[in-house]
Amino acid sequence: MYAHIHTSLSLLRGEAQDVPEIEWMLKTMAPFARHIEPEHRLKGAALGVLEALRSGTTCFGEVGSDMAPLAERVFAPSGVRARLASTINEIGPGSRPDPHKPYIFFPDIGERKLKQSIEFVERWDGAADGRITCMLAPHAADMMSKELLLRVKEEAEERGLLMHMHVAQGGREAIQMRLRYGTTTVRFLDEIGFLDDGLLAAHCHQASDEEVALLAARGVRYVSCPSSIGIIDGITPPLALYLASGGRSAALGSDQASGNNCHNMLMEMKVAALLNKTRHRNPTVLPAWKTLRIATIEGATAIGLGDQIGSLEPGKKADLIILNLKAPHMTPIISRPVKNIAPNIVYSARGDEVEAAIIDGKVVMKEGRVLTMDEEQVIAEAQRAAEIITSRAAEEFMAAGSLLTEAVKKGLL
Amino acid sequence: MYAHIHTSLSLLRGEAQDVPEIEWMLKTMAPFARHIEPEHRLKGAALGVLEALRSGTTCFGEVGSDMAPLAERVFAPSGVRARLASTINEIGPGSRPDPHKPYIFFPDIGERKLKQSIEFVERWDGAADGRITCMLAPHAADMMSKELLLRVKEEAEERGLLMHMHVAQGGREAIQMRLRYGTTTVRFLDEIGFLDDGLLAAHCHQASDEEVALLAARGVRYVSCPSSIGIIDGITPPLALYLASGGRSAALGSDQASGNNCHNMLMEMKVAALLNKTRHRNPTVLPAWKTLRIATIEGATAIGLGDQIGSLEPGKKADLIILNLKAPHMTPIISRPVKNIAPNIVYSARGDEVEAAIIDGKVVMKEGRVLTMDEEQVIAEAQRAAEIITSRAAEEFMAAGSLLTEAVKKGLL
Repeated sequence: MYAHIHTSLSLLRGEAQDVPEIEWMLKTMAPFARHIEPEHRLKGAALGVLEALRSGTTCFGEVGSDMAPLAERVFAPSGVRARLASTINEIGPGSRPDPHKPYIFFPDIGERKLKQSIEFVERWDGAADGRITCMLAPHAADMMSKELLLRVKEEAEERGLLMHMHVAQGGREAIQMRLRYGTTTVRFLDEIGFLDDGLLAAHCHQASDEEVALLAARGVRYVSCPSSIGIIDGITPPLALYLASGGRSAALGSDQASGNNCHNMLMEMKVAALLNKTRHRNPTVLPAWKTLRIATIEGATAIGLGDQIGSLEPGKKADLIILNLKAPHMTPIISRPVKNIAPNIVYSARGDEVEAAIIDGKVVMKEGRVLTMDEEQVIAEAQRAAEIITSRAAEEFMAAGSLLTEAVKKGLL
Repeated sequence: MYAHIHTSLSLLRGEAQDVPEIEWMLKTMAPFARHIEPEHRLKGAALGVLEALRSGTTCFGEVGSDMAPLAERVFAPSGVRARLASTINEIGPGSRPDPHKPYIFFPDIGERKLKQSIEFVERWDGAADGRITCMLAPHAADMMSKELLLRVKEEAEERGLLMHMHVAQGGREAIQMRLRYGTTTVRFLDEIGFLDDGLLAAHCHQASDEEVALLAARGVRYVSCPSSIGIIDGITPPLALYLASGGRSAALGSDQASGNNCHNMLMEMKVAALLNKTRHRNPTVLPAWKTLRIATIEGATAIGLGDQIGSLEPGKKADLIILNLKAPHMTPIISRPVKNIAPNIVYSARGDEVEAAIIDGKVVMKEGRVLTMDEEQVIAEAQRAAEIITSRAAEEFMAAGSLLTEAVKKGLL
């Protein structure tokens, strides 16, 4: 269960990381992002879904702009379960000339995106035999007006939908919130009555400890992306802190490549446990059994699907994976005095143990092969699309100047 | 290149972790460790070597008690490269009745282990066509007298050997050093003239920032085991700090299962980068190209083999692995404007990409299969041995009482 994922960016794997956070977006991501065409997003999403499915993910909480083509051409045919949302914001060309001045909002863009989001929900919520469901996704508190935020919330409540939003996700957002409202994202959202269990908040790594406790107290659902935020920001997002503060609905996300650079839940669990243990200097934080629960039943609950998936119980959907444990790194398997299967999965599994996947009762992967996608074709098309993007972006990327371009000049990358 | 590894403990995978550090050794490891017989160590070592080799490790810096049987029955026949050392200490039955009183040393045990170590060196240094070389391994500064430490150093210098030692590796060591010498491990070692480039220091996570700088300034070589120390101690060992302090010889280690719970360099690199980035709240720390160098050429240099292995150059040994990059999670591979192969390997590879391994010019792994070991047999024997150990230890383990036994009682493990 990846509750927060942007598969559509997967073509940028390995092309933007290891730089200061502010450089990351403006100097390393942006030159590539400008050349991503709608067709490239589909190739990237197919690659990301294939990769994640092969390493054990059956359910995707994808957010991004204009989700309809992805739903139709990737999520529905691939047979995976997905809870999708098209992001809503008021950002357009020229909105952000200077990160130290308030962004210029375009209400007509907000209107259009809200409308598109609602149309998406009306078309896709419950589609593909219920495998695809929807959320509403106000992009972030710094990307839209208070009025539009509240309208989205109203729509979500009327329609019985959860909201999926980036919350307190970096230095640039903090600057905007201070400029516009004189406060932080979490305080602002609390003041306008936005914090309740209708909200799935992603990231939150800029929230103070008190603010994390406030999110937990308000019943806000939380999705943490440890590898991604660790690589992009050098920060461990507050998963263990949220739980220790009484938060009851936590999930994990892979976020994206570039950044995390992979969608592999079996590796993500180990990283999640390790980053949270070392953040709190406490090896008892996020034990294996708890981390495995967050990746499955607790994650499913956080995304609002806990009554249908996340555990094997009578009456639930048949969403499950089968792991081949006959490998050196999964040996031994012991059941007494302690069952070591959860620690072995969380700390030693690497992804290729996944032999089969069943989603909604249908076999979508068997003997290590995904049956619903042509793997060779997905890989070849992704490679071709990435070559187009990167060759078009090459000069801009080098002209932007960053730690990466320095490394390129030294022959290190 | 795993510069610090205890493959012989691999049978305890997944059986002791997620507990306070002091509980880990005494209440979760010890009940099992008591039942590990010499034959079990061999089964564990074979499992660990097989696992590490299959995920890309060709050279092993194994340390542990009485290394001769492992050299003869595992490291030599498996075809891997190894730099081995039998640990020397003065600890025997009854040495440690109380962690808050000085350990009782047995000089005769020290004599015997030093003699055994030297005999091991004389038999094995340069054996197996030079694939196996040796070091001397004073166990740790709290496990032996100052006199014996200095004798080992003298022997090492006379014989032109490096020393491999656990340094500043936990709370119990800190207590002992304070009790016996009124100072810390690093200060003590500096006072007795122990810190120079003849020493490969493992762990060092209890060293202060100033002490890490001192180690670097003295030219001490450093091997960091991020996953292991993260899981056992909840601490990120100071790899980036050592480098920032001018340290020039850094390597990575997997340490052991239980703890890390796996020997997978392709996962370890991502963890190393992430833990160090978040420790310093800086995403530029340990960029992918640097992490890959530490796992290869810089690690080889740290362990004293940099002139022979670690990079592909004329005149060097042919030690290399071949990765199959045709997988969703390794796609795309881009060479312009930035070569993303290093980031993809460090942040997305998971171990099963390793298709072949050549060590000392000989093919030891081909088409994903290790040719020098019977994989099915290694797995089956390890499973059987682990079942014997754990069933014999079951009652003691439960009687010891720990967070793990609580989890067992709740049905969580």
